[in-house]
Amino acid sequence: MRVDVHVCEMRTPGDVSAIARLFDDGVVAPESVMAVVGKSEGTGLGKDVGREAADRAIKELLAARLGTSADDVADRLCIVLSGGSPGVITPHVAVFARTDDPAGISLGGPRLVAGLAHSAAILPEEIGRMGQIAKVRAAVELALADAGVDDPSDVHAVLVKAPSLSPESIADARSRGRDTVTQDMSIGPEGAICYSNDASALGVALALGEADEDEVHDGMVRRDYSVFSDVALTSSGGEKTHAEVLLLGNTTDSTSDLRIGHRSMASIIDGSAVRGALESAGVEVVDGDTRAASRGLVYALAKMIMPATGEVDGRRITLLEDQVGYHVAKAMGGFLLASGTGHTEVFVSGGEQNSHQGPPDGNPLAVIVRPAL
Amino acid sequence: MRVDVHVCEMRTPGDVSAIARLFDDGVVAPESVMAVVGKSEGTGLGKDVGREAADRAIKELLAARLGTSADDVADRLCIVLSGGSPGVITPHVAVFARTDDPAGISLGGPRLVAGLAHSAAILPEEIGRMGQIAKVRAAVELALADAGVDDPSDVHAVLVKAPSLSPESIADARSRGRDTVTQDMSIGPEGAICYSNDASALGVALALGEADEDEVHDGMVRRDYSVFSDVALTSSGGEKTHAEVLLLGNTTDSTSDLRIGHRSMASIIDGSAVRGALESAGVEVVDGDTRAASRGLVYALAKMIMPATGEVDGRRITLLEDQVGYHVAKAMGGFLLASGTGHTEVFVSGGEQNSHQGPPDGNPLAVIVRPAL
Amino acid sequence: MRVDVHVCEMRTPGDVSAIARLFDDGVVAPESVMAVVGKSEGTGLGKDVGREAADRAIKELLAARLGTSADDVADRLCIVLSGGSPGVITPHVAVFARTDDPAGISLGGPRLVAGLAHSAAILPEEIGRMGQIAKVRAAVELALADAGVDDPSDVHAVLVKAPSLSPESIADARSRGRDTVTQDMSIGPEGAICYSNDASALGVALALGEADEDEVHDGMVRRDYSVFSDVALTSSGGEKTHAEVLLLGNTTDSTSDLRIGHRSMASIIDGSAVRGALESAGVEVVDGDTRAASRGLVYALAKMIMPATGEVDGRRITLLEDQVGYHVAKAMGGFLLASGTGHTEVFVSGGEQNSHQGPPDGNPLAVIVRPAL
Amino acid sequence: MRVDVHVCEMRTPGDVSAIARLFDDGVVAPESVMAVVGKSEGTGLGKDVGREAADRAIKELLAARLGTSADDVADRLCIVLSGGSPGVITPHVAVFARTDDPAGISLGGPRLVAGLAHSAAILPEEIGRMGQIAKVRAAVELALADAGVDDPSDVHAVLVKAPSLSPESIADARSRGRDTVTQDMSIGPEGAICYSNDASALGVALALGEADEDEVHDGMVRRDYSVFSDVALTSSGGEKTHAEVLLLGNTTDSTSDLRIGHRSMASIIDGSAVRGALESAGVEVVDGDTRAASRGLVYALAKMIMPATGEVDGRRITLLEDQVGYHVAKAMGGFLLASGTGHTEVFVSGGEQNSHQGPPDGNPLAVIVRPAL
Repeated sequence: MRVDVHVCEMRTPGDVSAIARLFDDGVVAPESVMAVVGKSEGTGLGKDVGREAADRAIKELLAARLGTSADDVADRLCIVLSGGSPGVITPHVAVFARTDDPAGISLGGPRLVAGLAHSAAILPEEIGRMGQIAKVRAAVELALADAGVDDPSDVHAVLVKAPSLSPESIADARSRGRDTVTQDMSIGPEGAICYSNDASALGVALALGEADEDEVHDGMVRRDYSVFSDVALTSSGGEKTHAEVLLLGNTTDSTSDLRIGHRSMASIIDGSAVRGALESAGVEVVDGDTRAASRGLVYALAKMIMPATGEVDGRRITLLEDQVGYHVAKAMGGFLLASGTGHTEVFVSGGEQNSHQGPPDGNPLAVIVRPAL
Repeated sequence: MRVDVHVCEMRTPGDVSAIARLFDDGVVAPESVMAVVGKSEGTGLGKDVGREAADRAIKELLAARLGTSADDVADRLCIVLSGGSPGVITPHVAVFARTDDPAGISLGGPRLVAGLAHSAAILPEEIGRMGQIAKVRAAVELALADAGVDDPSDVHAVLVKAPSLSPESIADARSRGRDTVTQDMSIGPEGAICYSNDASALGVALALGEADEDEVHDGMVRRDYSVFSDVALTSSGGEKTHAEVLLLGNTTDSTSDLRIGHRSMASIIDGSAVRGALESAGVEVVDGDTRAASRGLVYALAKMIMPATGEVDGRRITLLEDQVGYHVAKAMGGFLLASGTGHTEVFVSGGEQNSHQGPPDGNPLAVIVRPAL
Repeated sequence: MRVDVHVCEMRTPGDVSAIARLFDDGVVAPESVMAVVGKSEGTGLGKDVGREAADRAIKELLAARLGTSADDVADRLCIVLSGGSPGVITPHVAVFARTDDPAGISLGGPRLVAGLAHSAAILPEEIGRMGQIAKVRAAVELALADAGVDDPSDVHAVLVKAPSLSPESIADARSRGRDTVTQDMSIGPEGAICYSNDASALGVALALGEADEDEVHDGMVRRDYSVFSDVALTSSGGEKTHAEVLLLGNTTDSTSDLRIGHRSMASIIDGSAVRGALESAGVEVVDGDTRAASRGLVYALAKMIMPATGEVDGRRITLLEDQVGYHVAKAMGGFLLASGTGHTEVFVSGGEQNSHQGPPDGNPLAVIVRPAL
Repeated sequence: MRVDVHVCEMRTPGDVSAIARLFDDGVVAPESVMAVVGKSEGTGLGKDVGREAADRAIKELLAARLGTSADDVADRLCIVLSGGSPGVITPHVAVFARTDDPAGISLGGPRLVAGLAHSAAILPEEIGRMGQIAKVRAAVELALADAGVDDPSDVHAVLVKAPSLSPESIADARSRGRDTVTQDMSIGPEGAICYSNDASALGVALALGEADEDEVHDGMVRRDYSVFSDVALTSSGGEKTHAEVLLLGNTTDSTSDLRIGHRSMASIIDGSAVRGALESAGVEVVDGDTRAASRGLVYALAKMIMPATGEVDGRRITLLEDQVGYHVAKAMGGFLLASGTGHTEVFVSGGEQNSHQGPPDGNPLAVIVRPAL
């Protein structure tokens, strides 16, 4: 298996011309695209016209090139667009292409592999609860197999996009006599977005052995943050009915020339995670200069969760009281990656208050690099 | 001369209890306070209830301890409060105290000195024009003398707080048959806040020899950014009638145990400036670990200007189109200092589009440290 | 009993000079003040520096004039400050003064009376549940007696300010093995502010016979909006431990020269409620000109709740998706009262999604007038 | 001439299905469409993804039906989309269709006519100055002729959409040695949007005889608001190079069944303008009930300008200090029209501080009605 990652700048919310050029120039075969991950421009709120425009344009382009429908594209691929490019983030998408590459030769050492899976349909009443957790867990196990990864410690990032709640899905549950975990559709502390993101993260944690079965139950979701996944980057949207999983790791069988590494931030200001992730990917960081060490960097990904204590290392901050705190948090995550690597086309989602993604008060962070030969 | 800097956390917008404790415990004599610099909590907009509460509380505390009036305190001291503590910035003030210290002995090498000066009154029609520039220049020259600094290259930060325009001051100018440089009171590209901040910066540049007289004229203000000061951190407010200058540098005569250093950011994502400033202050940064090297850090200061190109290193960003871009910019500046030093009580003002503060697209950044003995 | 209402403009967030003048000029005796109701300037969010400044200044002024402490003032009076004065609302407070007036003669017809009561302490785990509902109901019954109102149909407005949840109070409940109705402290659909406001409204509805006991239980709070109070205007704040009730109605015993009337808005755009409330207060509205009819208006009060359907009369609106929808809603409520009456010193709180205050999709609205003699 | 107006709800930013149905059902011939006016959903800021999506979808639909290009559609029609549908405004477009109707018979009294014109190209350095004013004036004169209106007092609304400044157009002017009236592209008091909107309004005022030539010159634009148009509703965008004019009035020659009327608001809270406009259109308003009188209302349009005094009828408001004041202003304008007429598909643009549109502190307001036969 060979996995390539191509980062494409978007000049307008629905601009997919750089992806089209990849196809036109023969750099990427449309059939090989397994995932499209990126940051769209727009409000970053639940309903985000910019993200919707990007999503539609990507599906329409792929549908046209594959001779199929946009819905079919949505079924085949994993599309994870995080809305809003605040601060120094350049709107973009990263195209993940995978080929069988039977004649390929491993370049030595662990190299990038990727696995894809879709979960069973998740009902509204399952969101944020064991129903979702179990289905995401099963999908992550499928993605592990799809990637050819045997050892969970070879996994460095698991992107999950799962359903959230909508007025329609809440009404649907009620019509069947079921309640939902919340009636708040926002990213607030009792919001469906957070419940879904966290249930997905716990599903990842179970699949990878980061959590034990007896630690994970309905009552601990968004309550007991000592249980978490170090590699889960999850998101959710009201319009989906199942979860999509993109699992990224390294194996020695891979014929990719890329490698992925990760290291979680220990706190919201832990800039050393960039160095840690680069070193995890086998990059030597000389004299602490992560920017020089990022010359071979292809893509960087992180979450940016707000600590619900309202404190950083015991010092009070006002992020939780900030009406646009979710937006500021994403901007700070983008700044961390951009100032640490020199790249502004980086993936940062976040804005939740506390999460089972990353350690308490911390955040997952991963880098994909092309090691010097 | 001996200069001390004491950083005091504020638990509410008007909380000055930590300053009061400095006085009560005999750590600082109220008479020795020359400046109070900090970040208040609030909106960070032109009219900011939180900043006003902090300003009032500081003046009232000092007035009570000095047996004088709040107005008199305002005349004696330099109070620079930057509104809004977005992101990871802890609301705080840094109290600058200066004593004659005739028996003091220099601890070796250049050590911190500080100079204070107030400009002549600046008329509304002078704001953003040569009138303000010349008056600020003169005040900076007084502050140089007050600090005992002979060589401008020993200056590492010049904080200036100058008048901005208000509906009342614009009407006053018109009643005298004068026009003002703008009728926009905001921090926008034609806003009075930016014109005043930039005229102050050009006054600093002239006083320190960073700019030549023939380069500076009305027509180039907020137009020709090749002329700038590398050490000016300026702000402005509608309620003031003259400029206040706090100049910080090092001399070998100083008996302080502190030292200041600076290095401008070359771009908005130039995180290496933290290391540069620490090294400029004589701190050894081992293996690029600025956080470990910041153990002796007392205070860090920076501006965070938005590049008006809407680009970072040739890549498009959307900061200029962001309704709260000024707020996001300050948060990113705070994140830079906090992640680089581990300190969240840091001074960051900004949000302007382009400025004569720092090089084009860059920003001044300074650190005050207590070198290990 | 005689009740007077004096509306005082506030020039800054903490400006109580107009209240002080009422005392200095002998218009109001400090001892007679029973309630202070108003709109402060500021963000209108949970933590609002402007509202805190107004609250503190009012208490300190009254404490000084009454020779007591600010805490004691808070115990004696009902202070209901709604944060944020968006749009055309002038920041102000209305001072409610009540005197025994044994020599007073009724001016004829029903005239304004007011009753005050504090509830028993409400525990965190009771908020948004029957515990709060029962305690508010009991307090409203006390306020009815205090006002001398026998017939609940003579009640036209009941202002309640109750505790909300805070990180501290949630932790307190957990430490005692209790859960809280939510862990979201916001005004969102699962937010503690809404749960508290709605439990208070249901307490009012029970006390006034607007709801039956068997209709009101934990499971229907913020679920079954067919149960509501037509006269409850409720708010809540994390810092309080009990509910304060200010009940306003008319009786023929009153010697006031004021009268109160109300009519709920049937929908968020039901401007006819202003006319209905004026007519309910006995004012003749000639040719539908409510503004001319408002010459004798002293004060107007309304809630502005967002319909959770996202529709107005079957037409889609985008208010629920608006990041500052709560702010826009209050501004529209203020515009309704200001355009309908010509007064900009009006009380509007709101921003909740759905509520038991007012009929489904509607809002309570009341006016206090001085009828022409 | 016969003019029809069809209001089409938009379910998503780019939803033009209701327009397509007008074509499919034979209600409107694509060739007859002369203008599309409406409110899109989105941020309402200068760069607004939602407005762009609506604009593109409208042009593409018309291009497909007319067998031409989107650019050609833009050249033929007048498309005025005001971004953002805050508060109770339903996202929608109103399709204006005009047919020659040689066999038509006037239904009696003045009836709706419409004229269309495009100005000569407006250079960046002309924006906000006499260059723009003269070109818009000439275009309005063409539109008068196109509408067949002889008497300017028969004109009730003139919509103008003109170029604004962009970074590119400012650079273009500079490259030719020209300066621009501002370098601020925002809707702020020195913003290009306001300068362009106001120059367009002054062009309308000159064309209709509302202003004298000697009153209008560069120095009075956005300074002397005693000169204004009572019927101009203007907007601007960085992407256009000429102004589009849609002029609406009544003549006795018209065979339309519609009629237009207008009355400006005398202040930002002057709700009586709705009644005045209905009466101006010949509608009897019984007992002041404008909502009942609006049964035959087809469309309502208004501007909502913020008074730069920061006062309403001498009372202080905080709208100018509100970071989202432009958004709140539009919401209040929408509320005025919706509560006054019962219609939520209404056109409101605004957010400027002061304007030559409408009298000082007031706003133009117009209604199109289908009088009862």
